[in-house]
Amino acid sequence: MATCDQYINPLIVQRADPFIYKHTDGFYYFTASVPSYDRIEIRRARTLEGLAHAAPRTVWRKHTTGPMSQLIWAPELHYVHGSWYIYFAAAPSIGPGPDGLFQHRMYCLTCESQDPMAGEEAWEERGQVKTALDTFSLDATVFERAEHLYYVWAQKDPAIKGNSNLYIAEMKNPWTLATQPVRLTKPEYDWETRGFWVNEGPAVIQHDGSIFITYSASATDANYCMGMLKADAMSDLLAPESWQKWDHPVFQSNLAEKQFGPGHNSFTKAEDGQTDMLVYHCRDYTDIKGDPLFDPNRHTKIQPFTWDANGNPNFGKPVPYNYNITSIAM
Amino acid sequence: MATCDQYINPLIVQRADPFIYKHTDGFYYFTASVPSYDRIEIRRARTLEGLAHAAPRTVWRKHTTGPMSQLIWAPELHYVHGSWYIYFAAAPSIGPGPDGLFQHRMYCLTCESQDPMAGEEAWEERGQVKTALDTFSLDATVFERAEHLYYVWAQKDPAIKGNSNLYIAEMKNPWTLATQPVRLTKPEYDWETRGFWVNEGPAVIQHDGSIFITYSASATDANYCMGMLKADAMSDLLAPESWQKWDHPVFQSNLAEKQFGPGHNSFTKAEDGQTDMLVYHCRDYTDIKGDPLFDPNRHTKIQPFTWDANGNPNFGKPVPYNYNITSIAM
Repeated sequence: MATCDQYINPLIVQRADPFIYKHTDGFYYFTASVPSYDRIEIRRARTLEGLAHAAPRTVWRKHTTGPMSQLIWAPELHYVHGSWYIYFAAAPSIGPGPDGLFQHRMYCLTCESQDPMAGEEAWEERGQVKTALDTFSLDATVFERAEHLYYVWAQKDPAIKGNSNLYIAEMKNPWTLATQPVRLTKPEYDWETRGFWVNEGPAVIQHDGSIFITYSASATDANYCMGMLKADAMSDLLAPESWQKWDHPVFQSNLAEKQFGPGHNSFTKAEDGQTDMLVYHCRDYTDIKGDPLFDPNRHTKIQPFTWDANGNPNFGKPVPYNYNITSIAM
Repeated sequence: MATCDQYINPLIVQRADPFIYKHTDGFYYFTASVPSYDRIEIRRARTLEGLAHAAPRTVWRKHTTGPMSQLIWAPELHYVHGSWYIYFAAAPSIGPGPDGLFQHRMYCLTCESQDPMAGEEAWEERGQVKTALDTFSLDATVFERAEHLYYVWAQKDPAIKGNSNLYIAEMKNPWTLATQPVRLTKPEYDWETRGFWVNEGPAVIQHDGSIFITYSASATDANYCMGMLKADAMSDLLAPESWQKWDHPVFQSNLAEKQFGPGHNSFTKAEDGQTDMLVYHCRDYTDIKGDPLFDPNRHTKIQPFTWDANGNPNFGKPVPYNYNITSIAM
């Protein structure tokens, strides 16, 4: 089993909203928001540690003008039905819309090649992934269950206080919803409403007959933390009552170790193919100068986690940095 | 002795013009051009490998307007006469001046603290480092020899064809020249004049009674390569005839390994305190889309080098990437 000490942290500096996917080709693939928010990059390596050194390739760039011209956020790379897809959010401008929120919508790219790093020419735009509401929406992820493909994302509902809630829908293909959105959670607890009322950044993990969705809550400062939902894998995933919501955060700042605002996570497996790994970003200071949006120092971290007797994940707390401990085993 | 295989490459992705300095506090300090060219960052770690994971701190940001408002390039961090200094170049705009060149001038910062990562408040501007000509100038470095402090940099002379030549002067303090500039080299060989006529990015290393200055030549594409000058350490370093110039590049692209345009180097020592290390940037592709200036994929690499029977460095050739070899010893 991998232990905390086997992984160097931070793993990758200056990458927020980290997403790692281990493919059948044996490579770990990594993508994330880049600090300039102007492109989508992919890198790959045979080990998690190798991702820190893997040469990135740009696979898509923001448009000069229009709805996909600013703030390219939170890309995820998925392999669905034999093809590669990237889900991401983009905005028409840096500024807020009439509702005071960012103006992101969700988009999908697909790759004509089985090699997702084949280059920009290999990636084609599939357009906006449209939902029932034309509002601020972002952080899409997808997962398959019993041959059904589901889409989970964050979106503003003008009738609900706050920036965004989480929704699920079934898909008819990897870039089109088949059903109406079903709301899974909205910001309601104190830990979800600090600074801003936010539920965003969903990530899905299936374990022992259950499906878990973790997500991030509150403002993206030291208040940022992770909540969790759980459903029986055999239940109707589009029925809100199938989902149980935790009333407390499952992962949050570790003040003693100066690990602030962990969140926007994804999941992967360690090289042993067994150990579950939590992937998230975190800051190591709270004294941000200038616009926090353009402070690049949210760093990608990884750490193993375990499952408790009830079959629920135990994420522990954000591990300290260990890059100055020279005896790290690889 | 360290060998190539002991260092993972690239060491740090998306950092060009890399500069590493090992201080008496046992830390390696790292700074470089950041892809956004809008700030100066420092990071530190106890090992070279640790620099890949070390959390950066911003120590200075570009001004909103004026001569220090764009294209912050090639910072170097030096400890001189008991204080920390940063040398860097900045421009008033992204575009060229009347001579068709970038409009950089050279600047100096000094730190009020013995901890150079104390924060932005600790760093103070010392203004422009002025030379005899008010022209495009950049890539300053400093070195001490026999209690004299020297400044070496790249600058345009309108009377000489090309973008920049290399100059040396003695300093009266770490931000002021004491003497007239003396030209050390200008682009003249074919390998110095491919794409553009360029001599830039000087780096100094002293060894066995000699002083070497390496520099970078030609356009910053696959033609970019390193040249070298040598002087007897006891000679008059301000006399051009003290310096011998190599008629061939001492380090250049390794096409077989897709290592293109190595250069803008610095020097440091391995953790053993003995092995000399070459630090440089390199690209792994030549098919650059869009403005090469804003293609972020010049990556920092490191590799040990040796000295030949004549006391000259043997840099070898750019090593291949090895981040997918999982058995790298730390």
